[in-house]
Amino acid sequence: MSGIETTGSKRLVLVSGRAHPALAQEIAEELGSELVPTDARTFANGEIYARYDESVRGSDAFVIQSHTSPINEWLMEQLIMIDALKRASAKRITVVAPFYPYARQDKKGRGREPISARLVADLFKAAGANRIMSIDLHAAQIQGFFDGPVDHLFAMPVLLEYFKEKLDPATLAVVSPDMGRVRVADIWSDKLGAPLAIIHKRRDPLVPNQVSVHEIVGEVEGRVCLLVDDLIDTGRTIVRAAEALKANGALGVVVAATHAVFSAPATEILQSEFIDRVVVTDTLPVPEEKRWDRLTILPIAPLLARAIHEVFEDGSVTSMFDGAA
Amino acid sequence: MSGIETTGSKRLVLVSGRAHPALAQEIAEELGSELVPTDARTFANGEIYARYDESVRGSDAFVIQSHTSPINEWLMEQLIMIDALKRASAKRITVVAPFYPYARQDKKGRGREPISARLVADLFKAAGANRIMSIDLHAAQIQGFFDGPVDHLFAMPVLLEYFKEKLDPATLAVVSPDMGRVRVADIWSDKLGAPLAIIHKRRDPLVPNQVSVHEIVGEVEGRVCLLVDDLIDTGRTIVRAAEALKANGALGVVVAATHAVFSAPATEILQSEFIDRVVVTDTLPVPEEKRWDRLTILPIAPLLARAIHEVFEDGSVTSMFDGAA
Amino acid sequence: MSGIETTGSKRLVLVSGRAHPALAQEIAEELGSELVPTDARTFANGEIYARYDESVRGSDAFVIQSHTSPINEWLMEQLIMIDALKRASAKRITVVAPFYPYARQDKKGRGREPISARLVADLFKAAGANRIMSIDLHAAQIQGFFDGPVDHLFAMPVLLEYFKEKLDPATLAVVSPDMGRVRVADIWSDKLGAPLAIIHKRRDPLVPNQVSVHEIVGEVEGRVCLLVDDLIDTGRTIVRAAEALKANGALGVVVAATHAVFSAPATEILQSEFIDRVVVTDTLPVPEEKRWDRLTILPIAPLLARAIHEVFEDGSVTSMFDGAA
Amino acid sequence: MSGIETTGSKRLVLVSGRAHPALAQEIAEELGSELVPTDARTFANGEIYARYDESVRGSDAFVIQSHTSPINEWLMEQLIMIDALKRASAKRITVVAPFYPYARQDKKGRGREPISARLVADLFKAAGANRIMSIDLHAAQIQGFFDGPVDHLFAMPVLLEYFKEKLDPATLAVVSPDMGRVRVADIWSDKLGAPLAIIHKRRDPLVPNQVSVHEIVGEVEGRVCLLVDDLIDTGRTIVRAAEALKANGALGVVVAATHAVFSAPATEILQSEFIDRVVVTDTLPVPEEKRWDRLTILPIAPLLARAIHEVFEDGSVTSMFDGAA
Amino acid sequence: MSGIETTGSKRLVLVSGRAHPALAQEIAEELGSELVPTDARTFANGEIYARYDESVRGSDAFVIQSHTSPINEWLMEQLIMIDALKRASAKRITVVAPFYPYARQDKKGRGREPISARLVADLFKAAGANRIMSIDLHAAQIQGFFDGPVDHLFAMPVLLEYFKEKLDPATLAVVSPDMGRVRVADIWSDKLGAPLAIIHKRRDPLVPNQVSVHEIVGEVEGRVCLLVDDLIDTGRTIVRAAEALKANGALGVVVAATHAVFSAPATEILQSEFIDRVVVTDTLPVPEEKRWDRLTILPIAPLLARAIHEVFEDGSVTSMFDGAA
Amino acid sequence: MSGIETTGSKRLVLVSGRAHPALAQEIAEELGSELVPTDARTFANGEIYARYDESVRGSDAFVIQSHTSPINEWLMEQLIMIDALKRASAKRITVVAPFYPYARQDKKGRGREPISARLVADLFKAAGANRIMSIDLHAAQIQGFFDGPVDHLFAMPVLLEYFKEKLDPATLAVVSPDMGRVRVADIWSDKLGAPLAIIHKRRDPLVPNQVSVHEIVGEVEGRVCLLVDDLIDTGRTIVRAAEALKANGALGVVVAATHAVFSAPATEILQSEFIDRVVVTDTLPVPEEKRWDRLTILPIAPLLARAIHEVFEDGSVTSMFDGAA
Repeated sequence: MSGIETTGSKRLVLVSGRAHPALAQEIAEELGSELVPTDARTFANGEIYARYDESVRGSDAFVIQSHTSPINEWLMEQLIMIDALKRASAKRITVVAPFYPYARQDKKGRGREPISARLVADLFKAAGANRIMSIDLHAAQIQGFFDGPVDHLFAMPVLLEYFKEKLDPATLAVVSPDMGRVRVADIWSDKLGAPLAIIHKRRDPLVPNQVSVHEIVGEVEGRVCLLVDDLIDTGRTIVRAAEALKANGALGVVVAATHAVFSAPATEILQSEFIDRVVVTDTLPVPEEKRWDRLTILPIAPLLARAIHEVFEDGSVTSMFDGAA
Repeated sequence: MSGIETTGSKRLVLVSGRAHPALAQEIAEELGSELVPTDARTFANGEIYARYDESVRGSDAFVIQSHTSPINEWLMEQLIMIDALKRASAKRITVVAPFYPYARQDKKGRGREPISARLVADLFKAAGANRIMSIDLHAAQIQGFFDGPVDHLFAMPVLLEYFKEKLDPATLAVVSPDMGRVRVADIWSDKLGAPLAIIHKRRDPLVPNQVSVHEIVGEVEGRVCLLVDDLIDTGRTIVRAAEALKANGALGVVVAATHAVFSAPATEILQSEFIDRVVVTDTLPVPEEKRWDRLTILPIAPLLARAIHEVFEDGSVTSMFDGAA
Repeated sequence: MSGIETTGSKRLVLVSGRAHPALAQEIAEELGSELVPTDARTFANGEIYARYDESVRGSDAFVIQSHTSPINEWLMEQLIMIDALKRASAKRITVVAPFYPYARQDKKGRGREPISARLVADLFKAAGANRIMSIDLHAAQIQGFFDGPVDHLFAMPVLLEYFKEKLDPATLAVVSPDMGRVRVADIWSDKLGAPLAIIHKRRDPLVPNQVSVHEIVGEVEGRVCLLVDDLIDTGRTIVRAAEALKANGALGVVVAATHAVFSAPATEILQSEFIDRVVVTDTLPVPEEKRWDRLTILPIAPLLARAIHEVFEDGSVTSMFDGAA
Repeated sequence: MSGIETTGSKRLVLVSGRAHPALAQEIAEELGSELVPTDARTFANGEIYARYDESVRGSDAFVIQSHTSPINEWLMEQLIMIDALKRASAKRITVVAPFYPYARQDKKGRGREPISARLVADLFKAAGANRIMSIDLHAAQIQGFFDGPVDHLFAMPVLLEYFKEKLDPATLAVVSPDMGRVRVADIWSDKLGAPLAIIHKRRDPLVPNQVSVHEIVGEVEGRVCLLVDDLIDTGRTIVRAAEALKANGALGVVVAATHAVFSAPATEILQSEFIDRVVVTDTLPVPEEKRWDRLTILPIAPLLARAIHEVFEDGSVTSMFDGAA
Repeated sequence: MSGIETTGSKRLVLVSGRAHPALAQEIAEELGSELVPTDARTFANGEIYARYDESVRGSDAFVIQSHTSPINEWLMEQLIMIDALKRASAKRITVVAPFYPYARQDKKGRGREPISARLVADLFKAAGANRIMSIDLHAAQIQGFFDGPVDHLFAMPVLLEYFKEKLDPATLAVVSPDMGRVRVADIWSDKLGAPLAIIHKRRDPLVPNQVSVHEIVGEVEGRVCLLVDDLIDTGRTIVRAAEALKANGALGVVVAATHAVFSAPATEILQSEFIDRVVVTDTLPVPEEKRWDRLTILPIAPLLARAIHEVFEDGSVTSMFDGAA
Repeated sequence: MSGIETTGSKRLVLVSGRAHPALAQEIAEELGSELVPTDARTFANGEIYARYDESVRGSDAFVIQSHTSPINEWLMEQLIMIDALKRASAKRITVVAPFYPYARQDKKGRGREPISARLVADLFKAAGANRIMSIDLHAAQIQGFFDGPVDHLFAMPVLLEYFKEKLDPATLAVVSPDMGRVRVADIWSDKLGAPLAIIHKRRDPLVPNQVSVHEIVGEVEGRVCLLVDDLIDTGRTIVRAAEALKANGALGVVVAATHAVFSAPATEILQSEFIDRVVVTDTLPVPEEKRWDRLTILPIAPLLARAIHEVFEDGSVTSMFDGAA
């Protein structure tokens, strides 16, 4: 038969946007590899440029970006990097977006709204992405927004490992900060063997259109309360919840969340007297000036590195979470 | 200038699958129109055939189908009808699926699962659908599964109108049958001005992997409880909830749901002594043998007809629900 | 250069729907492999669910389904299984549909009809299929309905091998049951070195719109007639043809077909005195109660297994039929 | 409400490639309109250029081209004209291809062949076509190659009208020139109330791989034979058939076909003594030097004009052929 | 015939992002219409939200955005607004991007670069845009990046009208600031009837990799020089060119450009003594602090309004520039 | 785990159209391989047919075609060959088009024109191409017309190597034949260390709409002029430029171009006394009768072979031109 035949090989490459270089660097180190040297720049008029200094032809490429503020800059940078990979003949392109951008705009709550979380999936596709990897999606349905494989990872094992040493189930209560996050809290309650409580924001019938009452459903008195959520944005919901818990006799309030969005004034108000500790991961960068002594940041790079390795080697990402979620 | 110029016109046509002909007929009557005569048949080997007896060229076509059991038959029939409309030069094709098929498989709960609700959106698209109209989607995110407009209608106004006459807010409690449906119950609670209660299924710590305790969060004693959900399938969850409510002193239990899936043994167990009345709409057909005296079925055709009219006339579907959801 | 490099490997996996488990099992055995354990179920309301119990990441996956009645159930199950494979990162997905569903609706015979055979190809594509493998398509043009490779196999070698031992060309005639299947019969005639005859259904000029006369074109008297077709559905055409052949002096009538659709009342009428033997393959399951003593079912699994092997190993499927078709 | 509202209107425009200007001109005249003046040219190196001299914005555009030799030139010209219409904001673009190019390559007869008829449909789509209009497709399945409406017209009414005056059913036989065209001949036989005959090319068992015997199935002696086909290419098949018919006692042989491809040496050999008359339509141009006295060319423009009018006015093309095919 | 028929109508709506509200407002006024009231916001974490306060169903929508710094914010806002329009059933969506974002990254100058101008076209398409309208594209080939109509407008008539009154062709020279913009200058030279000069940046053979010599090709001594370009970014090229012109005896230097990107330090250096006047349009906003006395800003809204009107009314945009470009 | 696992391998195959068989043959030889034997034919009516005689399943296929006149024939042949590869399960298909067809129609110069260069990219995509390889695109933006990788090669190293031996920089001038090709000439000037001159075609103000004056910008007197362009079509521009150069005192005129389109009357007029030598590559075939003694044709096969090898082996094509362009 005509032609030239050789044995196949495959090559994993990691490239990173400029949003959170430390995370990308740690992932590379976990994998015993290096990031592809990349020339990424913003021109005077705000346009972004990116170019790889090494061949990526035929590679299994992972494009790491962290969608922190300014989120649209970093999203656009990632799209441009995907386009450059596609045109440079990368064989497969996986978006690594530890915190999925626009995840909270996942439906039309009212008429004439966008569904920006779907739009983001479409933009990744249009740029040339074949796969997405993300952690603790705000709604699991976002997996269905992308027409291709989505590896949905869970930070829970990372957080759980930390808490198992620190907290005593006997005096613990797991608390959901509102009605919408009850299912997540339910899983935590199960994993830790601790009872569940819920904070219910009720409209005061005397004051229309205003949430004013924070009822607590379940037993918190004399307990250390673990408030769990997927993300902390401005922190207002969490602080009010902590205050209500303490007012109801909680001994302590510890907050656990995967994504430290920390929009202003989060850093200030989370240092509230009602909160004893905040534990997050570094899916998003937390600069020095946004850190305080009672904040613990757990590294997420080992989890991402392992998942990337499984994807590259055709292993099983699912098995990473057996018994976990 | 060359060419022939005439004034434009537009024509709405309604076609219907064979799953729920009464509903389609009522929609047509509400609109003062008629269904396009259609030859739809199932051949001996199970293949479905459909052909329109009138031209549909250039029309704004609405394909009505109700996704009751055998659900795959009716879904396939609708896809075939869409294909026939596309090839017959219909100008715009809107899927009318009052109960969205496979809505509950809206995410990968575990690895290697399908996301069938997204698949269904893709199948509609592949067949040639431009738009989807549906009622009370199990998860609002399903709107984002379709790459085009989705008119998401709410049956609440239809149900509310019925209950406003029958129930007294002063002695009422709105109850969510489980943690996952709390948000819907919350809206009902608001609309009716009645307090909210929740049924929490808890795992018994002594019996692993089994839900055995039905806690009731909130006050139900001495109240008439309105159990609300988007759909009733086998009815098991509802009946257990009703039993728990009565055991906790509820004066009465009324169940409200949009979609009467009523898979066996729903019809039998919903006639339980713990349930005083079940109120549903006819988005799905409820045959005579599945009806009983304490079942009320409210007609959904007026809502659908009005929405179709708004879509055809470029009006506002959103405005139909102002102040409602 | 940055990155991690390893030698590539590839993995074939076989998954099967529930329509014809014996066939899938035999294919796996022929290949010296096993089917991926799969949890496929139908819920109370008719919705189908499927999940793979093992990783299929990076695999070359073949989804075997047999499109027997209820055909829409099995088609939908296969689409769901394809979606699950796609989302589980299978590298390439091949639909194995030995009997292509809706093959006979391959054109618009009249205005406002669907072209369901094309629709089926589009549905496979939308779900995520990359390739299709099928046997004896009703019209070879169906290959062009799919935007990708279609491996079109022929059962003729399997059937021929059987007949070469049983039938004597010297006293044989190959017969086409109607005008539309003449080309297939022509090939058989060639392969067996036996003369060709055709049965022509003619409209009786005195009775409008009714086929009443079965003319036989060619010599059948004193010969054993081999009636050949791609499929037997209700069997009516075949039985009438056999009767006409016997009436014209045929010594025996043997029927050969690839696909045993056997819709009612096929099983009854094919046991007619005019038919001496019916020979089919098991592309479709033939349950015990549909079998009778003069029915021979030839196993198709070896052919499919060999073709799957060629596809996986980048061999040549075409060469399997050299000199055959 | 904001915005500007006006009543809509619609405009039909006809544009034509350079393959068969007379046909396009006649269609325009039938419609009481004019072709859009177009600058179409071939540059020195063979590249084609086309530009419209008038605005076509918002129009319902029909791109007429006749796929005669050099067929690839005219196909490419049509694709370029479609692209120009798309970029000039035409609202809807309909390909008018009276003779569908590459219609005979509609399946893979052997491995590693193209399916060029599907490719052509894909090229039209890629260029921007929304619909296709064609006459007497070689295989009706080609309709399924295009993902959109295909208006499949039949020249039979045009031909039939001519023959109904000229031929006497009592002494007529309709003849299919080979096994593959029997179905078309069958319809003619029905319409004319004349018996059917078939010419069967058989391999001579003594001379391998050669078709040498032309058997005639059916009665032709003493009859005028109407040989029918969808197209005449080199004419060889037809001439041999005519010779066989005359040798078997046919009184006369008249040939009817829709598409006069007339590749060399068609013009010469069709003037054979065995053929009394050839009747075709002008879907393809027949230049003066390819005409002879016993050739009749029927105008196809009225049929195309009426179909275009129905499409533009959202009428029914199907109804044009009621009772015809 | 079944169905409901009414006469069609069409409605133009204008929506605007937040980048340059004055421009959008002026366009609306020119059209005698109003912008659709829109709730567009940026959340604390940088995510953008947009919702229309009025129905846009069935409308011909134009989404106006000006791609000034921060350019990625405004691009993302426009994509979100397009998504919201698509999901709200707008009939046709036209992107109005007077200054096309990322226009200068229109090719791979080196390996592994993106082609961001194509990416932007793909993103618009993915979000749901049907058409693009832009002014003076950096490279006309960008029209080919979008798979649909692009209305490419020219600001030249606006600028020319201004200059025809101010400048005397007899003492004028049109100057291209570098080799790459010669074609644009050539058209100006033609329109104004003034001679052309070119500034050639040459590498000094003694200083490798550095452009150091500014040769002037053509006659500028004693003339008023009109330096023309499509955009002014940092202004460095222009200022150096002006200096060279003055050094070569130019009497005056006037700069004309369509797009006032004005990245720092443009505002400072353009006030150079070598430049007598800078004339731009307001395709991009020029805030008060970036203006100076010798800067003239011509309104572009009338041109855009007229083009939008032509598109909506199916008129001719081309005819707006007859004799102009 | 279930399934069959083997080590992967990959196979390069070369197939060629009939436009320039010598080039394809040389590429194969350079690679130490052979072309896949292919049956490519043109039928009597002009339709093209192609079939591969060997399996190409799973291969990395390169489809070589040279787009010489009749250009539409060869383009269509290539599309058909791509379709056949796709349907025969080639794994990746790269179009090798040394001279990109329709490259000069790369934008809408006027309203209602096509953008045929984009259309060609879309046709390649529609047929099934994954990648394109081409040499010296007329505009580099054409890379952005294809939604996938484009390997843009440069013939400059091939040409430069030839000239470095023949020409003395000290007495050389590099000349651009018009304003539009200045950038190419600029690079040559740099590479050869020779000064640049430009020929400016000016409209004579006394004769409207006619280019009549050929100004020379830069010093050519007493120098050997190297006229450079990407292609030579009819040669008229080049000959007029050469004449002007000689009239201005050039000692000699040598012409260098990549693509020898050589449309009539190129061969005649390029033998002009004003031109001392023409040097081209064989991206397009130059038949014997179009050659003359002062024409030098450099082989391009080594460049293409090396690039194909780099693509197949996931090497770097970019590195082939380091320091070159």
